[in-house]
Amino acid sequence: MSRWLIQKLYAGAGRPPARLSLWDGTAVGVPARDALAHLRIHNRGTLMRLLAHPDLYFGEAYMSGDLEIQGDLVGLLEAVYRARAPSRGKGVRSRFADGLLRRQRNTLDGSRRNIHHHYDLGNDFYQLWLDHEAMQYTCAYFPQADATLEEAQVAKLDHVCRKLQLQPGDTVVEAGCGWGGLARHMARHYGVRVRAFNISREQLQFAREKARAEGLEGRVEYIEDDYRNVSGDCDVFVSVGMLEHVGTEHYPEMAEAIDRVLKPDGRGLIHSIGRNRAVGPMNAWIERRIFPGAYPPSLREMLGIFEHRDFSVLDVENLRLHYAATLRHWLQRYEQNVGRVREMFDDRFVRAWRLYLCGSIAAFNTGQLQLFQVVFNRATCNELPPIREHVYCAGHRG
Amino acid sequence: MSRWLIQKLYAGAGRPPARLSLWDGTAVGVPARDALAHLRIHNRGTLMRLLAHPDLYFGEAYMSGDLEIQGDLVGLLEAVYRARAPSRGKGVRSRFADGLLRRQRNTLDGSRRNIHHHYDLGNDFYQLWLDHEAMQYTCAYFPQADATLEEAQVAKLDHVCRKLQLQPGDTVVEAGCGWGGLARHMARHYGVRVRAFNISREQLQFAREKARAEGLEGRVEYIEDDYRNVSGDCDVFVSVGMLEHVGTEHYPEMAEAIDRVLKPDGRGLIHSIGRNRAVGPMNAWIERRIFPGAYPPSLREMLGIFEHRDFSVLDVENLRLHYAATLRHWLQRYEQNVGRVREMFDDRFVRAWRLYLCGSIAAFNTGQLQLFQVVFNRATCNELPPIREHVYCAGHRG
Repeated sequence: MSRWLIQKLYAGAGRPPARLSLWDGTAVGVPARDALAHLRIHNRGTLMRLLAHPDLYFGEAYMSGDLEIQGDLVGLLEAVYRARAPSRGKGVRSRFADGLLRRQRNTLDGSRRNIHHHYDLGNDFYQLWLDHEAMQYTCAYFPQADATLEEAQVAKLDHVCRKLQLQPGDTVVEAGCGWGGLARHMARHYGVRVRAFNISREQLQFAREKARAEGLEGRVEYIEDDYRNVSGDCDVFVSVGMLEHVGTEHYPEMAEAIDRVLKPDGRGLIHSIGRNRAVGPMNAWIERRIFPGAYPPSLREMLGIFEHRDFSVLDVENLRLHYAATLRHWLQRYEQNVGRVREMFDDRFVRAWRLYLCGSIAAFNTGQLQLFQVVFNRATCNELPPIREHVYCAGHRG
Repeated sequence: MSRWLIQKLYAGAGRPPARLSLWDGTAVGVPARDALAHLRIHNRGTLMRLLAHPDLYFGEAYMSGDLEIQGDLVGLLEAVYRARAPSRGKGVRSRFADGLLRRQRNTLDGSRRNIHHHYDLGNDFYQLWLDHEAMQYTCAYFPQADATLEEAQVAKLDHVCRKLQLQPGDTVVEAGCGWGGLARHMARHYGVRVRAFNISREQLQFAREKARAEGLEGRVEYIEDDYRNVSGDCDVFVSVGMLEHVGTEHYPEMAEAIDRVLKPDGRGLIHSIGRNRAVGPMNAWIERRIFPGAYPPSLREMLGIFEHRDFSVLDVENLRLHYAATLRHWLQRYEQNVGRVREMFDDRFVRAWRLYLCGSIAAFNTGQLQLFQVVFNRATCNELPPIREHVYCAGHRG
């Protein structure tokens, strides 16, 4: 019986080059010496849950220790992702899974809860493994493959600024500013004034202290408020890594917020994790444990924002493999500091975040996830540089 | 009565800075000295038709001479386009207009008829006003605003080739090759082999003669067949200015054709006129007289192609203002050769094509139309250059 069940589980995972064994020694898969990884299921309950709902319980069981994995976790997940044909719509199991999840809605209050869950884990924690230069918790940009994480994150900031054609004196509204690195970079190197919105209190505290220490007060203002409440007017609207937390049902409000603040000749950029197709909710475990309320849209879904108001898409760039590279840097630093993480939290947390980082690398590497940067302006505006050479061939800044 | 009607017509056009007068001397609009253009309606039937269905009969009446226009036709059309708020869905009139039109379906036979209507007007005609270098009847690319049409069309060809990262020895399938300029350029300057498909017999004849004269036989093959019948396999799929003639209902067939021929590590580019939003059929007159069966998709609609199979969008560039610049060159050459056009055809034709060229300039300048270049590959392929610098900063070719 347990042999039949474990074979079913192994087949369901697409028969990756791994070894899978049970508490009673029953094993399937490739011989140990050829296996990318060895997975051990420690009890029957875990096996049954994995069979019933692998998307959720793979993570749950790994986190709890009921599923032990030795070997190359990223390689294993890549093999599983590659083996599963991309689904064209939701399968029965996936629809069932949706029902299991109480979706975390992104109302004003819901967003605050959801963002607090992830981003207020403590600045000390994120400082262990994010870049030391700009504290960027979004995809970096590697002009050369061997750039350091710090170099690549600064290059990302410049890439965004050049796409937006920042001019000294411009006013910028940033929606979802993280620890405020982009806003400070813009103010310092491009001579613009930034009003940056965020609803994570811990991040804002960090951002304000940094700005004060760097003498940027008066040029960068960090505002504790939701993107739906942006006000005033601006030459540039920018949002890096926030759209994932908005939810497609709120895209019209996003469009209306941009429409409210952007000047007639203004430019905008939205940078977001995305997908090639809308294939339903995110992985159930990621939704439960890591990113409640998050949803990576397809590019089509993103375009709904621009179509809702009279915006025109000027440029889309897919930086998927840059995110895989970014995540490899994060994972490496995370593992270097895993002792500190264990002290701050516990073993369950350590494993959960390892799985999240490894799974994300695998997802970007196998094309399950994309990273889209979309530049837009108002449909009636003819004031943009006609070619993109300025992004690449001009001096680096300004 | 006629004063009330002409006022209604003028208001419906958004009160452009123009003068509009009737056969009986009745006039509305701005004083003659301030008017961009003076429009004269020569009879009551024309006035009534213009009121009932302006989108169709503006062109019909201008073509027949029942509506005479003196002054700046492009400026007039831009003012009209700017005044009409972009519609969010179809209005009553527009739905009525749809009913008037027998849509020209793009079945295999329908496409042949539709393409013949426009592209088989005679190579001599197109040679009067297209560039002499590559006979490109698609948007050029102006690296500098003052580039000549010939320079800008060659720059477009190189822009496409660089985005596609052509390597010597690559095989290319081109869907809709016009007079074959891109295929010859690729073969000559990038050392690739091209099979180029087209259903316009006149264009193919020209393309084959040119390839023979330039010694490119064996490296470029021009095939008289529909894009749906592409076969073999290729490293690169490219289609410049054909998607406008496909129709959204055939996008799945387009996706399947690409899926059939593109190698696992292949790259693709589709270049098409588009719109910011799907707002129903094209202008009724353009559909009837100029481009039967044509439809400029929204970017969202274009993405349907890539979502239908497992493709991933890597890069989108909007070259709208480059098309306005291209059309200004075409219009200038057209007017320089208008005597020849009149000899080849007649006054009605001369006016129809003038209106089409002027209207197109106005449409691209005011954002009614966009020009999208979309680069894509298979979702599972990681073999593309990670950044776009090669498009801009490398040597020009190869």
